[in-house]
Amino acid sequence: MKVLLYPDKKQLLEKLARPYSGNKEVTEQVNRIRVSVSERGDDAVREFSLRFDGASFPDMEVTPMAFQEAEDIIPGELKMAIRRAANNIEKFHETQLQSGSRTIVEEGVTCWQRTVPVESVGLYVPGGSAPLISTVLMLAIPARIAGCPKRIMCTPPDKNGNIDPAILYAAQISGVTQVFKVGGAQAIAAMTYGTAIIPKVDKLFGPGNQYVTEAKQQALSQGVAIDMPAGPSEVLMIADKTANPAFVAADLLAQAEHGTDSQSILLTDDQTLLDSVQEELKQQLQDLPRKEVAGLALRNSVMVLVNDMQEAMSISNEYAPEHLILAVNNPEQMSLEVRQAGSVFLGNYTPESVGDYASGTNHTLPTNGFARNYSGLNMDAFVKKITFQQLTPSGIKSLGPTVETLAEAEQLQGHKNAVTLRLKALQKQIEEVQS
Amino acid sequence: MKVLLYPDKKQLLEKLARPYSGNKEVTEQVNRIRVSVSERGDDAVREFSLRFDGASFPDMEVTPMAFQEAEDIIPGELKMAIRRAANNIEKFHETQLQSGSRTIVEEGVTCWQRTVPVESVGLYVPGGSAPLISTVLMLAIPARIAGCPKRIMCTPPDKNGNIDPAILYAAQISGVTQVFKVGGAQAIAAMTYGTAIIPKVDKLFGPGNQYVTEAKQQALSQGVAIDMPAGPSEVLMIADKTANPAFVAADLLAQAEHGTDSQSILLTDDQTLLDSVQEELKQQLQDLPRKEVAGLALRNSVMVLVNDMQEAMSISNEYAPEHLILAVNNPEQMSLEVRQAGSVFLGNYTPESVGDYASGTNHTLPTNGFARNYSGLNMDAFVKKITFQQLTPSGIKSLGPTVETLAEAEQLQGHKNAVTLRLKALQKQIEEVQS
Repeated sequence: MKVLLYPDKKQLLEKLARPYSGNKEVTEQVNRIRVSVSERGDDAVREFSLRFDGASFPDMEVTPMAFQEAEDIIPGELKMAIRRAANNIEKFHETQLQSGSRTIVEEGVTCWQRTVPVESVGLYVPGGSAPLISTVLMLAIPARIAGCPKRIMCTPPDKNGNIDPAILYAAQISGVTQVFKVGGAQAIAAMTYGTAIIPKVDKLFGPGNQYVTEAKQQALSQGVAIDMPAGPSEVLMIADKTANPAFVAADLLAQAEHGTDSQSILLTDDQTLLDSVQEELKQQLQDLPRKEVAGLALRNSVMVLVNDMQEAMSISNEYAPEHLILAVNNPEQMSLEVRQAGSVFLGNYTPESVGDYASGTNHTLPTNGFARNYSGLNMDAFVKKITFQQLTPSGIKSLGPTVETLAEAEQLQGHKNAVTLRLKALQKQIEEVQS
Repeated sequence: MKVLLYPDKKQLLEKLARPYSGNKEVTEQVNRIRVSVSERGDDAVREFSLRFDGASFPDMEVTPMAFQEAEDIIPGELKMAIRRAANNIEKFHETQLQSGSRTIVEEGVTCWQRTVPVESVGLYVPGGSAPLISTVLMLAIPARIAGCPKRIMCTPPDKNGNIDPAILYAAQISGVTQVFKVGGAQAIAAMTYGTAIIPKVDKLFGPGNQYVTEAKQQALSQGVAIDMPAGPSEVLMIADKTANPAFVAADLLAQAEHGTDSQSILLTDDQTLLDSVQEELKQQLQDLPRKEVAGLALRNSVMVLVNDMQEAMSISNEYAPEHLILAVNNPEQMSLEVRQAGSVFLGNYTPESVGDYASGTNHTLPTNGFARNYSGLNMDAFVKKITFQQLTPSGIKSLGPTVETLAEAEQLQGHKNAVTLRLKALQKQIEEVQS
C-alpha cells in the first residue's frame, strides 16, 4: 500500500481517480450475443452457455424438486445464518416503504402519488468459486417486499448443470419466482428480449463481470431499465487515534480480497496508527487464503496522512466511496458531514462485512464515484411512483385561467382550449340554473 | 384518427407499438460535438452555437441585470400565473420529501437512511418558437426544494443572444443559480465535462430534440446521470358515456399539437361517444393555430371501441401511457387499477393541461412505454439515499457469528476475519475484567 504524507488534496484526488474502463472487444462480443439471443432465443442461449460455461443441460429452469433437495442438503447453521440475514434485510427495507398522502394543493385541486411495483424484475447472480448467497438476498428480498409480481433469477450452473444449494435455498426464502440456470451476457440478453423459456423483464438487477455489465448497458438501449452502472468495489476508511489498527487492517483487507481491481483507502491524522496498520496488514495478509488477490489489490490502495478529520471528510466527499467506514472517536457526529457515499459504517464495531451480509442495509451500492449521482439499492428501485390529480368544477374555475395564461405564453392553443371549453361549459350551467 | 371496433387486444397493442428510434447519423454527429467540447471547451461551444443556432454573443452567462430587465418587461398577469404554478409545484413536491427513521434491526444493530441532495444539477430547457416556461418550473423547483447546491440551466438564445424574459423570470423565482445561453448537444457536452465557463454537473435533466436526447445518453457513459430516457409525448384517454365529447376531443388535440410524432389514443365502450368525439375533432381542429401539426399527429392516433372498461384498463396498463385521462363515471375507483402510467387525470374537469402547467404534479414523465420501469420526475431524482449502520459491542457479539458463517460460505475469509478479530478482542476484554 502506498503511503502519502500530507498530500495536496487536488493531487491526491487525481491519484485516486478510478481508471475509466471501456473495452471495444467486450462491447462487440456482447452485441453479437445479444443479437443472436434476440433472433434465435433459447437455442442461442444454450449454445453460449455451452461455449462459455461448459454447461450442457436439458432443463434451463430449476425444478421444485431441486429446491427441496437444496433445503435438505445444506447445514443447519448456514440455513439459520441465511434466515437471520434475510430477516434483517427485510426489516430495514420495509421501513423504506412510503405511502403517499393526498395533498389539497388549492381548493378543488387534489394531487397524490401512488407507489406501484415494477411488474417484472430480472435478478442476476454471478457464478464463481463460491456461492454468492448474499447477492440473492439483497436483490430478491426488496423485490418481494415491493410486491413485484414476477421476480426471476438467472445464475450460471456448474459444468454438471447444477446450482449451489445455498443459492437455491436463499432464492427460495427470498421469494424468487423462477430460477434459470443461465449466466453471462446470454442471461441478460434472454431477460432483455424474453425467450420461450425465460421471460422478458422490465428491469435488471445485480452485479457481474465486464460482459454482464456491458450486456446490462446494452439492455438499457433496448428499453429495459437497470439498477445502476457497475465498477470495481472500494472502501474508504477514516480513522483517528482511537481506532484499532488490527480492525482497520482487517477491513482494508476484506475489501482487497474482492478482486485485484478493488481499492482500499485509509485516511488518518495519526502517524502512529498509520504505522501500526502497515504492520498489521503485513501479518494479516499472510493468513489470508486470497492473499495473492488481496496483495495485488493493495497496490491500487493508498494510506494517507491528513492534517485533520475535516480534511479527511472533505476528501471522502470528493471521492464518493462505495463503502465509508468511520473508525473515529465520535462517528455519529462525523456521519452528519457525509454527502457522498454508498453505505456508511460507524465506529470500531461496525466492519463493512456486517453490511455486506446481515445488518439489514443493502450491499448493492454505487461504485466508481457514482455515489455522487446514484443511491445504493433501496425500495425506490423496485417501484414506480405514479402521480394522480383531480380537479372539481370549482377547482378548474379557480386554477383554469392560470393554465390558460401559461398555455397562451407557450403558444399551445390546444392546451388552452382544453381548459377554456370546460370553463365555458361550467359558465353555461350556472346561467341555466339562474334563468 | 383511425377507428378500431372491438379489436383483438394483442393485435391492438402491436398497432400501438411505438416505433423504435435510433439514428446513426445523429449518434455520430453528437459524438463529434461531445469530443470537441471535451477537448476544446468553450471555444467549441461557441462554434457549435454559431453553426446550429446562428447565435453569436460575447457573454455565455446571463447577467443579474438581464434577470432584472426580464422581471420588469413581462406582463403582470403572466407573472402571477407563473408564481401560482410555481407555488403549486412547490407544495406538491414538498410532500414527497422523506425523513428516514432509525431502525433497531436487532438489539445493538441500528440502521438508517439519510437523504442527501445531488450536489450539482444541469437543467436543459429547449428553445423554439415559444418559451417553455413550465419546463423551467418543473425542473428547477424540485432541485431547489431538494437542496441541490448548484442548479444551473442551459437554454439556447435567439439570434441576438437573448433569452425570452418569461424563461428568465421563471428561472429566477425557481432558484436557478446560473443560466447559460447555450443549447443543443453542445450544452449537454459542456455540462458533462465542464468548461471554463459552464460547470460540470452530476446529473442532467430536461427534454430536447433528438440531438439533446442522444447527448444525454452519451453523457450517461461518461459518468453523468440523467433523469430518464425520452421519446415523443402521448396521451391515452379512457372515456365512457358520461364523458363530454367536446372535452375529450380537446384533450386529444392538446396532445396532438405537441408534434407530428405525438400519439393520442381513445378507448371507449360507447359508440355514441366515439362518433361525437370524431365530429368534435373535425370542428375543433379547424380553429387550432397548429392544425397542421395536430392533423399529422392524429394520423398516429387511434380511437378504439372496447367491450368494457376493464378491457380498456388492461390495454392501458400494457401500453403504459405517459398521460392517462380517466373521463369516466367513477374515476377514483378506476384509478386504483392503474399499474403503469406517468401521470393520471381523473374526471371530466381534469384536462392534461392542468398537470402540464399548474396542478402541482411534475410534467416530466416517462414516454415510449418507459412508464413500465421509470417514474415521472419526483423528489427522488434530485437526491441520493445513503444508508448508515452502527453496531454496539453487544450487537456484533450477537450478529457476528451469522456474518462469519455467511462469509465462510462465500469463501471470503477476509470478510470473516474482520468480524472474528473484533469478537476475539471483546472476549479478551471480558476475560480481563473477570480476572
